Amino acid sequence: VAKRLEKFKTTIFTQMSMLAVKHGAVNLGQGFPNFDGPDFVKEAAIQAIKEGKNQYARGYGVPDLNSAVASRFKKDSGLVVDPEKEVTVTSGCTEAIAATILGLINPGDEVVLFAPFYDSYEATLSMAGAKIKAITLRPPDFSIPIDELKAAVSKNTRAILMNTPHNPTGKMFTRKEMDTIASLCIENDVLVFSDEVYDKLAFEADHISIASLPGMYERTVTMNSLGKTFSLTGWKIGWAIAPPHLTWGVRQAHSYLTFATSTPMQSAAATALRAPDSYYEELKEDYNAKKAILVEGLKSVGFVVYPSSGTYFVIVDHTPFGLDNDVAFCEHLIQEVGVVAIPTSVFYLNPEDGKNLVRFTFCKDEETLREAVRRMKQKL
Amino acid sequence: VAKRLEKFKTTIFTQMSMLAVKHGAVNLGQGFPNFDGPDFVKEAAIQAIKEGKNQYARGYGVPDLNSAVASRFKKDSGLVVDPEKEVTVTSGCTEAIAATILGLINPGDEVVLFAPFYDSYEATLSMAGAKIKAITLRPPDFSIPIDELKAAVSKNTRAILMNTPHNPTGKMFTRKEMDTIASLCIENDVLVFSDEVYDKLAFEADHISIASLPGMYERTVTMNSLGKTFSLTGWKIGWAIAPPHLTWGVRQAHSYLTFATSTPMQSAAATALRAPDSYYEELKEDYNAKKAILVEGLKSVGFVVYPSSGTYFVIVDHTPFGLDNDVAFCEHLIQEVGVVAIPTSVFYLNPEDGKNLVRFTFCKDEETLREAVRRMKQKL
Ligand SMILES: CSCCC(=O)C(=O)O
Ligand SMILES: CSCCC(=O)C(=O)O
Repeated sequence: VAKRLEKFKTTIFTQMSMLAVKHGAVNLGQGFPNFDGPDFVKEAAIQAIKEGKNQYARGYGVPDLNSAVASRFKKDSGLVVDPEKEVTVTSGCTEAIAATILGLINPGDEVVLFAPFYDSYEATLSMAGAKIKAITLRPPDFSIPIDELKAAVSKNTRAILMNTPHNPTGKMFTRKEMDTIASLCIENDVLVFSDEVYDKLAFEADHISIASLPGMYERTVTMNSLGKTFSLTGWKIGWAIAPPHLTWGVRQAHSYLTFATSTPMQSAAATALRAPDSYYEELKEDYNAKKAILVEGLKSVGFVVYPSSGTYFVIVDHTPFGLDNDVAFCEHLIQEVGVVAIPTSVFYLNPEDGKNLVRFTFCKDEETLREAVRRMKQKL
Repeated sequence: VAKRLEKFKTTIFTQMSMLAVKHGAVNLGQGFPNFDGPDFVKEAAIQAIKEGKNQYARGYGVPDLNSAVASRFKKDSGLVVDPEKEVTVTSGCTEAIAATILGLINPGDEVVLFAPFYDSYEATLSMAGAKIKAITLRPPDFSIPIDELKAAVSKNTRAILMNTPHNPTGKMFTRKEMDTIASLCIENDVLVFSDEVYDKLAFEADHISIASLPGMYERTVTMNSLGKTFSLTGWKIGWAIAPPHLTWGVRQAHSYLTFATSTPMQSAAATALRAPDSYYEELKEDYNAKKAILVEGLKSVGFVVYPSSGTYFVIVDHTPFGLDNDVAFCEHLIQEVGVVAIPTSVFYLNPEDGKNLVRFTFCKDEETLREAVRRMKQKL
């Protein structure tokens, strides 16, 4: 294996989902629903296949999806972007992250990110040869330690990689935190790479795109995807929105990483993004109900449950159960209890920081959530 | 844009396909059929979507596709591989190439490739920081200059990146050439990355996988895809087959480039790969007929047409028409004649090497091929 990937293991998501299958455990680990996406989107994909939309898409996206992405972004953030010059369709948000980083970051460039983080951030930054500075968000509220952030960002910083609503903590960056990030970026001429895949799962306040803050659009790559919002994580449609000079770098990397993304899936994604507001409202209501079941359940089991205001994840402290660390706890949970959660230590530069914390997802039908709670109550 | 991608332009395929649309030209440029893939494969994708196979696939492939890839590889090459440990499903062969190179090549590693080459090879090698040595294949037969190859390969070589049947020339590497490559690799402990997406479009002799030569499997990554063989280039399903120690590197890069590939498309790809031999025979017959139409047509127009024994491409010398170089010729062809071909100079380290050559594809219905010839006869 090349040195750029030497330190990385099989992704924790793959490890845990495979263990879930092996042990027949209830899988509250990797973030994919155990229910299906909406019929009108599936029907659109079926139509596209039938109509013969089966050859190479335009590299940066089928025109209809580029337009739909721009329209939705306008609705959500108020920003008007050119679908032809500022939107790039990718094979999931994971590819948008890789293309953004490989397309815009040079070896030695300093990039600031927030720990815990989705593991691909560290791996792709390592592929690009970036120097990583991590700011650790700590329980109970995972707020940004503003002084640490100010100390970390300087004229030597090339980019801040952020994610709100935040996986794995469920934290949403506050307006004040975002203002601080924005002013630091403007002051020091820093780019922002903003992963917003959970934007529609914001339970307590509306999601704000950092690109919509004054002076920020020109320095921001906003990344999002279809999967989380439309319960179709397996379709792997994502996108990056950025001004033309940044889009150029993203598109160049994308051209040579995958060239283009599945044509019929893109066509259906365009239909999905035109969903009425009621779709998004119902989604949020559904998830709010699921969240209540899981959070109450975890509390009743005896966990310290940290507040989650966005995403479909919730972080708990497992130390009441006396296991050594997050990995040992998750092993016990799979083998003795039959439930899968995600240990968080892999999401920190220093694994020690995550040793008390594990993540559960509530993107499962209510009976599955209740069954997981039942098992934990009985056997933990 | 990051330095690793600075020298690259918008891919020639995107450029030419967009010009084709703009000018309403007959597009014999980028390699995608203007007819649809087989119904049984489309039906399988529709079924998968309906059945709810719409969540994240296992990162390295849905089990059924990994098995189908291994079975087809056994049938084609005689090699028995473990679908769980030696097959990685990717988002098209382009991603297999990127994951192989980013997963296995370190900065400064020497990689030998053959020019002209599919442009992603150079770009991804540049992303990995490789030192590229190109061996140029020259008309009329594009055979490998064995002495040059021997001079290029040494103990310092990390890998040879090869492609047979060869895009853009249509050349198939001979058994003797492959034996030479194999013995050089074994002697110097060199890896082989072998792009075999046109394996089923081998018109004069059966395709041979270099991995099947004695001593080669353990050092070879064999890459292939669904798109060319099943006329579904837009589905973006590819794979890499390699022994476990090389698969590890490929999977690590893949995990962080895209994580996983479209689930319903993978499910349908497994069905496709189980097609009876008659499917592949008919495909070849069809393409043979198309090839005859295009080759005869191009000759009648006045081109020097070089022999193509594989792929759905054919290379011609355009100099009888008096334009300065391949790019000028292709511009004239689009604007004045209404036909799109691909200039080849971007496929060489030294663009001069390709200035007399342009590539046409015959993956179009017969009427389209005849119309292109008619236009050229009339207006060139
Ligand atoms: C490849 S998993 C992508 C992110 C996610 O779903 C998770 O964090 O569980
Ligand atoms: C992205 S185009 C892939 C290869 C191909 O089809 C071509 O060479 O035309």
